[in-house]
Amino acid sequence: MERAVPHFQDELEGLQTRLLEMGGLAEELVRLAVQGLVTRDVSLLDKAHHGDEPINQLHIEIDNRCFKLLALHQPMATDLRAIVASAKINTDLERVGDLAVNTAEAAKRYNNHPPVKRLVDIPQMGEIAQGMLRDALDAFVRRDTGLARRVLNEDDRLDALKTKVFRELLNYMLKDPATVEPSLDLILISRHLERIGDHATNIAEDVIFMVSALDVRHAGQPDADA
Amino acid sequence: MERAVPHFQDELEGLQTRLLEMGGLAEELVRLAVQGLVTRDVSLLDKAHHGDEPINQLHIEIDNRCFKLLALHQPMATDLRAIVASAKINTDLERVGDLAVNTAEAAKRYNNHPPVKRLVDIPQMGEIAQGMLRDALDAFVRRDTGLARRVLNEDDRLDALKTKVFRELLNYMLKDPATVEPSLDLILISRHLERIGDHATNIAEDVIFMVSALDVRHAGQPDADA
Repeated sequence: MERAVPHFQDELEGLQTRLLEMGGLAEELVRLAVQGLVTRDVSLLDKAHHGDEPINQLHIEIDNRCFKLLALHQPMATDLRAIVASAKINTDLERVGDLAVNTAEAAKRYNNHPPVKRLVDIPQMGEIAQGMLRDALDAFVRRDTGLARRVLNEDDRLDALKTKVFRELLNYMLKDPATVEPSLDLILISRHLERIGDHATNIAEDVIFMVSALDVRHAGQPDADA
Repeated sequence: MERAVPHFQDELEGLQTRLLEMGGLAEELVRLAVQGLVTRDVSLLDKAHHGDEPINQLHIEIDNRCFKLLALHQPMATDLRAIVASAKINTDLERVGDLAVNTAEAAKRYNNHPPVKRLVDIPQMGEIAQGMLRDALDAFVRRDTGLARRVLNEDDRLDALKTKVFRELLNYMLKDPATVEPSLDLILISRHLERIGDHATNIAEDVIFMVSALDVRHAGQPDADA
């Protein structure tokens, strides 16, 4: 045992560093997509739309690192939980990257039409989703289950806003057919942002599992869409 | 080593059995939701809408089994890949259950309106998604990478249909505001079905990784929505 420990701890730290790097890239991609939507800035949206390649590369690299750590070091207890949690967080961050790309794509389509009245609550949804992602990753670094639990609470706010956005846009569409196409893109964007929140929630749950070996999933209602 | 091997193989088989059970439940939930939509049968939709609890329970149980197998047996090479693949497939199947619930929920809302012209290509999308799920799980059981690769090809068909459905429904909505609400639900359903196909694709990729230790992810373009 003694022989392998320092090497293993270095590799575990390396894994965490890469995961945080990936988290930073995913967060930045979400920020670009939402800012591009708000400011109608095509260059930001193009950057977000084609910006997930480094995230996809890190996804594969981190998966390989997790696999090798399991295979070569056969870790136990806390270390094993940390690696399993890292592999899951890796999957979630990759999906966040995809969703940021999807958001940018819908925002580019949205820009082809006159804007719908002040983007309803979508900028706020973007801020909440980004905050959740940041807090979930901070909770991971600091092994902070209190912060992780606050992320779980934020998800309810995001769901409520998604439903509100849907209702408001539906009203516009029913009143004025010219708003159907841009409203549809905003509805899709609100759902992408809500799903980014879901992935931040998954990460927070993994942090709680990693720190306390406590499974908090499926404690409430099924994750049904509005 | 000799001592632990038979016990480990039994547990690995037990894990696979539970995973297939979960796959069967997820597939059945998708079938109920789509059939309920096509036949406008509220009892089927209710069953699907509230039917994911056994899947959620299996999700937790299978995750624990994977974790214990890793912790107690510290497997290597093929066995390690099989457990890591099982943990990933578990996550995908749980999401399929959520998406079937979301489909049933949207179908119930859809039933409150007069039907939109013959559900466009949605029943076909449902069949393709179910077939992909079934084939991906068969490929897992038989360690059949050829079948897994066919699942990857099917995903392109599903994406193309999703785009076609979106365009057709957009046309209806632009022509007749009375179709806006039911069309929106159909668009959401087509996206849920397409995402079920994405999860089947993930499972197929895990099978290929498990059998051949080959990573086929991120080989093409980013997974951007239409």
